[in-house]
Amino acid sequence: MRGTVLYAPGDIRLEQRPDPTIVEPTDAIIRLSATCICGSDLWPYRGIETIDEPRPMGHEYCGIVEEVGRAVTTIKPGQFVVGSFFASDNTCEICRAGYQTACVHREMAAPTGAQAEYARITLADGTLVATPEVPSADLIPSFLAASDVLGTGWFGAVAAEVGPGKTVAVVGDGAVGLLGVLAANQLGAERIIIMSRHPARQKLALDFGATDIVTERGDDGVAAVKELTDGLGAPSVIEAVGTRESMLQAIGACRPGGHLGYVGVTHGDLPGDALFFSHAHIHGGPAPVRRFLPELMELIANGTIDPGKVFDLTLPLDLVADGYRVMDERTAIKTLLQV
Amino acid sequence: MRGTVLYAPGDIRLEQRPDPTIVEPTDAIIRLSATCICGSDLWPYRGIETIDEPRPMGHEYCGIVEEVGRAVTTIKPGQFVVGSFFASDNTCEICRAGYQTACVHREMAAPTGAQAEYARITLADGTLVATPEVPSADLIPSFLAASDVLGTGWFGAVAAEVGPGKTVAVVGDGAVGLLGVLAANQLGAERIIIMSRHPARQKLALDFGATDIVTERGDDGVAAVKELTDGLGAPSVIEAVGTRESMLQAIGACRPGGHLGYVGVTHGDLPGDALFFSHAHIHGGPAPVRRFLPELMELIANGTIDPGKVFDLTLPLDLVADGYRVMDERTAIKTLLQV
Repeated sequence: MRGTVLYAPGDIRLEQRPDPTIVEPTDAIIRLSATCICGSDLWPYRGIETIDEPRPMGHEYCGIVEEVGRAVTTIKPGQFVVGSFFASDNTCEICRAGYQTACVHREMAAPTGAQAEYARITLADGTLVATPEVPSADLIPSFLAASDVLGTGWFGAVAAEVGPGKTVAVVGDGAVGLLGVLAANQLGAERIIIMSRHPARQKLALDFGATDIVTERGDDGVAAVKELTDGLGAPSVIEAVGTRESMLQAIGACRPGGHLGYVGVTHGDLPGDALFFSHAHIHGGPAPVRRFLPELMELIANGTIDPGKVFDLTLPLDLVADGYRVMDERTAIKTLLQV
Repeated sequence: MRGTVLYAPGDIRLEQRPDPTIVEPTDAIIRLSATCICGSDLWPYRGIETIDEPRPMGHEYCGIVEEVGRAVTTIKPGQFVVGSFFASDNTCEICRAGYQTACVHREMAAPTGAQAEYARITLADGTLVATPEVPSADLIPSFLAASDVLGTGWFGAVAAEVGPGKTVAVVGDGAVGLLGVLAANQLGAERIIIMSRHPARQKLALDFGATDIVTERGDDGVAAVKELTDGLGAPSVIEAVGTRESMLQAIGACRPGGHLGYVGVTHGDLPGDALFFSHAHIHGGPAPVRRFLPELMELIANGTIDPGKVFDLTLPLDLVADGYRVMDERTAIKTLLQV
């Protein structure tokens, strides 16, 4: 099959690789309907995260089950499935508490890489969620988004305790931040402030339900959010970047006693005193997408939400390297790869 | 009057100072019934927190109201009162949400210092809570503890979402950690694990309701807590130290999706990735003691709790310098100063 491998910072290649096969009896093999490039793929691509050896890339996936291991009982060949980046048994105490990304049996869901034609998915029964029937092609982008960025934005909103009538500030206008806006809107937020200075991203944020745009950053951005919230800061803040600067902005924008959901993979140290004196409730981490998948897949299937709109560029898998480049340059929000 | 002033690291002096007077119409002057030395006083005493000029010390207090400003309406001369280290109006939106330590009018409650015979207390109506009658002398230590360490330990337990039947791990065996144990017990925790290697502190923790003692620190301490909690970590963790090491220990001891209440004043940076991947709910900051004072003062008055037991050394105010020394050496848990 064709699959994507990162060899070194900036050196991403589509190449012929062995077709994945069942290794563990709990595995499934899927044929991807589509795949995509994640903001977190850019960390190793940019060399900020180091890699020791060539790494098969891609952890966002949806597709048709081709084959299952002998211990797989609920997932069947022919089903259309979506899963998360971490595999989970979905039965342990941590999974039952809704933290499948911290499952006691957690492992990479797609160790062979999902930016490929086929992928081996581990712990298939616990990890994959099937639709009642194979969806039409126009819904594939939204189901693909559910695999990571939608579930991650949704978790950010849930962790930020977004609810009816509340005001939410969103730090980060990447796919996760934008889908955090969509989630906040679905969860009933009255006012949704997106921090963005990119016209195309601002427009999509407004489509997804944002009511206010703040273009300033850093202290000025914090001041602008406070200006919009009686000088107190927002009761809910979603952080979807993962840098020290974005966390400081999010902390500053959150009112004392408010809730900050952080879902950008945190890189580097965080300022202890800023966290301490913020009085914010802070929750986040790798989103337990599996918790939300059944609900989100239903909302997609019945046309309530259209998270696939975050894909503003579609390329054939052959052009995966171009896909990385435009995302690195931020000229595309998110690139869908046709398999 | 006699009052305590820190001149430089290790240079703490009791000296003659002007009697405090009403400055703002919202002030009260109290005559202290007792005062004490806080773990956080040790940061500048040790030179870890720098001071630019001689600083009057002490922020824990209870006593008899001597005089009030003309705008003070609820607090009356002759009342016995307790207040927190930060003054609050107790009427703004942030106070009403229970975060009086982030009141929009927040200021130091005892700017003249409370390790003294008299203290000026700011925003008296919002800050002070009076008892129905002047309590007997034996209750003074407990009311004094309510001023800071009890309320702080209590907030740690509330922030850690301690509740009936839950398991709690407490990192830190100072007065705040020990009173976190007391709070967890009052809030119905079934199992309370104190991390301590000091026999006297272990004993007091057991008196306050601890059920298990972990003497290991760092990774070994984390492993010991996991051993006691089905390998998962505790659902509630109270952090009552404020160092990077203690936070790492607390994060490690907390199960994914659990709640970590941190009330040790955080010094230095925190590891972003450890926080992120912990999946913990993190909440804390300077404890809004005022939120809990009415309830805690009632529990003290009716004999339900005896937090005054954290004072294992009583000295006359004249020996305040010795009080700092023994707390710095950790030969006393907490020193009460008789005024």
